[in-house]
Amino acid sequence: MSSSFSSNPRLFRPGSVPPPAIPREPAAPFRVAILGFGTVGRSVARILCESTRPGVRLTHICNRNVMRKRVPWVPPRVRWTESVEEVLCSDVDVIVELVGGLRPAGDWVRAALECGKSVVTANKQLIAYDGPELLAIAREHGCQLLFGASVAGGVPVLSGLEQGLAGDRLSKLCGILNGTCNYILTRIEAGVSFEEALREAQKLGFAEADPTDDIEGFDARAKLTILARTALHSSISPSDVVCAPIHPISRVDFAYAANLGCTIRQISRAEVQEDRLFAAVQPAVVPLSSPLARVQGSENLVIATGQYGGETVFSGFGAGGDPTAVAVVSDLVALYRTRSNDVSHGYPALPPHRPVTSEFSSRHLLRFTVADRPGIIAALAGILAKYEINIDAVFQKPGFPKSQLPFVISLEECSATALDAALKEIGALDFLVAPTLSLPVLA
Amino acid sequence: MSSSFSSNPRLFRPGSVPPPAIPREPAAPFRVAILGFGTVGRSVARILCESTRPGVRLTHICNRNVMRKRVPWVPPRVRWTESVEEVLCSDVDVIVELVGGLRPAGDWVRAALECGKSVVTANKQLIAYDGPELLAIAREHGCQLLFGASVAGGVPVLSGLEQGLAGDRLSKLCGILNGTCNYILTRIEAGVSFEEALREAQKLGFAEADPTDDIEGFDARAKLTILARTALHSSISPSDVVCAPIHPISRVDFAYAANLGCTIRQISRAEVQEDRLFAAVQPAVVPLSSPLARVQGSENLVIATGQYGGETVFSGFGAGGDPTAVAVVSDLVALYRTRSNDVSHGYPALPPHRPVTSEFSSRHLLRFTVADRPGIIAALAGILAKYEINIDAVFQKPGFPKSQLPFVISLEECSATALDAALKEIGALDFLVAPTLSLPVLA
Repeated sequence: MSSSFSSNPRLFRPGSVPPPAIPREPAAPFRVAILGFGTVGRSVARILCESTRPGVRLTHICNRNVMRKRVPWVPPRVRWTESVEEVLCSDVDVIVELVGGLRPAGDWVRAALECGKSVVTANKQLIAYDGPELLAIAREHGCQLLFGASVAGGVPVLSGLEQGLAGDRLSKLCGILNGTCNYILTRIEAGVSFEEALREAQKLGFAEADPTDDIEGFDARAKLTILARTALHSSISPSDVVCAPIHPISRVDFAYAANLGCTIRQISRAEVQEDRLFAAVQPAVVPLSSPLARVQGSENLVIATGQYGGETVFSGFGAGGDPTAVAVVSDLVALYRTRSNDVSHGYPALPPHRPVTSEFSSRHLLRFTVADRPGIIAALAGILAKYEINIDAVFQKPGFPKSQLPFVISLEECSATALDAALKEIGALDFLVAPTLSLPVLA
Repeated sequence: MSSSFSSNPRLFRPGSVPPPAIPREPAAPFRVAILGFGTVGRSVARILCESTRPGVRLTHICNRNVMRKRVPWVPPRVRWTESVEEVLCSDVDVIVELVGGLRPAGDWVRAALECGKSVVTANKQLIAYDGPELLAIAREHGCQLLFGASVAGGVPVLSGLEQGLAGDRLSKLCGILNGTCNYILTRIEAGVSFEEALREAQKLGFAEADPTDDIEGFDARAKLTILARTALHSSISPSDVVCAPIHPISRVDFAYAANLGCTIRQISRAEVQEDRLFAAVQPAVVPLSSPLARVQGSENLVIATGQYGGETVFSGFGAGGDPTAVAVVSDLVALYRTRSNDVSHGYPALPPHRPVTSEFSSRHLLRFTVADRPGIIAALAGILAKYEINIDAVFQKPGFPKSQLPFVISLEECSATALDAALKEIGALDFLVAPTLSLPVLA
């Protein structure tokens, strides 16, 4: 478009009166109570205590036998208590529910919402079974229920589907939502029996003493239910989703899948076709070329397919205290931002300009193109040594003319400054017939 | 936690009076004007016209020679105009700026914000160069500036970093942000020269007639700047970022990279180390095992690394009218939701319960374990034929005992109902020594 399609807007005076500028007051910080001080609870507290988040203040930690749970790095202003009633009666704004399970956690969440306190939870079973009812209670009482941590731990897939892809019409979800099954299947592929792989997973803390929920697919089913409601706007409950267990899978099945260029993964999927919703959690054969095939250990991955945007992939760490805590704290930040009415991808307080540099320290490949003659490597190696740059290897592919011979020297990690200086000096050498190409090698 | 750590919360009566329930009025729809009716503008209009989004109403479309741009599927209530002034003076709430470039688009965005109109834009150069100034104007005038579409098209990476990972402390970004370079590099790897690959990209509409911005890295640099501000809270401008062009890369470089189990990609990266910010856009050697190596054509991919959540990956279609329009419409929805004060992953109006089924139609592998004898394949094939299920192939790996012989039949696509019925009948056959395993094969 040329500027002719308007006169200079700098000179433009709108006929309508612009609304008055609304100076935005910073909202008071949210007072936050953590209910359940296990692995995730500790991580949430640590993130809230370590970084200064003006919008969020930890005020209560509630757990049974709370005195045994106390940690020295929580500031003294935080109140430790065993009494859920005390927390519910207090002036906290938000309850972070990390107790898990349907009862009594669900009762506490209901009670909190009925007092008008917002709730952030990582409780997938509670949200899968009672989410719609609890959201209705939250709406009725003018508060919020957020559960970004209930699916895929630290991978921001719920917010991605709900907000980032809000403009699309999503029709299909396919993902790996249970790290325990994923670990066990990769171990079976490596030649270990199911039973042995399960014992390993238990020893490593990936699997519970009673692994039924993981192995049978009930854990993934709860997460798929939550995702399908958000992404596909489907009224669905966990009992609608058929699950097949992974324990019948053995090494020979991987051998047959490999014949087809495939592997086997526990796949959770849901798809809207016309007026029907397909949903299942089951071991499935997936092509090695699919991102699903490359998910390692406790990673989670979700592929969402939309009418307009095609396939979008989210992946990362689906379990563990710290990644799950990131999702909880992100929900707290979202609550605070909504209250202060700010959605902008804004940077309200950018720090003073940092020095910006391109001098990443890394390994490099240098590709030289030379008119071949004796002494070339010696000349190059001498200059590199002068700048204290170590050579890792020299490669030369056959089949090129001696007058235009490309070859590569790979370098150990060095600073970009030293390398630039060396390359400048190398640039003056008379056997080079083309500029030297320098490529960093990412670890 | 046992329930003993609280009495029954259903009986609990808080001492504090709960706040009154706030019935949430649905906010009036936003009135939206599209400035610039090219590929993305048409896609945005189509999404807004096709789907009923109660919060967003298209009211104006503005372009030069607008009469030549008219399309019949836009409802008659939408006003077509060539006058930016008319739009700025109207009662529209949000301007969608899809003109691109710094001038005059930037002037129009400034004028809109100064009138208190929020702006949604896909203009990466404008946000990279003038984003902080424009955000300040928006704040001053009580409106919003959103630019989710300015980076990675339909991949919701900006909202993911800003909202989904708000709870983490991010230190590093690494990604593929330019589909043109990615396409050209994959073609060079396939044996085509740089010049030929560029001509192909231009013919396919991936590359501009003047491809300088892509090839030199200026396009990716603008996107990296925007990402680094949001994720790393860094004050950075595009001119701070060193760029290296991709045109020196030739096929031989891929051959040397392959020696190391690597390939070459145009990589944009930024990293905070202590008080320094590293940033560069350059061709780099990346391991084939990295998700960066597997990015195809116009796909974009970003890996964000956080102190708590580790690596999170976002990928999808980084360009094109429809994916970019998804990002624009998602920003419009975010504006509407903020105004109506709703961040919940809620499902306010779930449709009536759809029938939920696990009967995905797909190819399958059946793994049988049998006591071997003649006639087994005939018996199985007979039952499958009866249910109109076609056999694709039969595989048998050597090295198993005849008494416990596993083998696989792969099936063409069939319905799960037919397969279940066939498997039930097969289950009664006396040569089976273990339950039959049925695995869907994902395309």
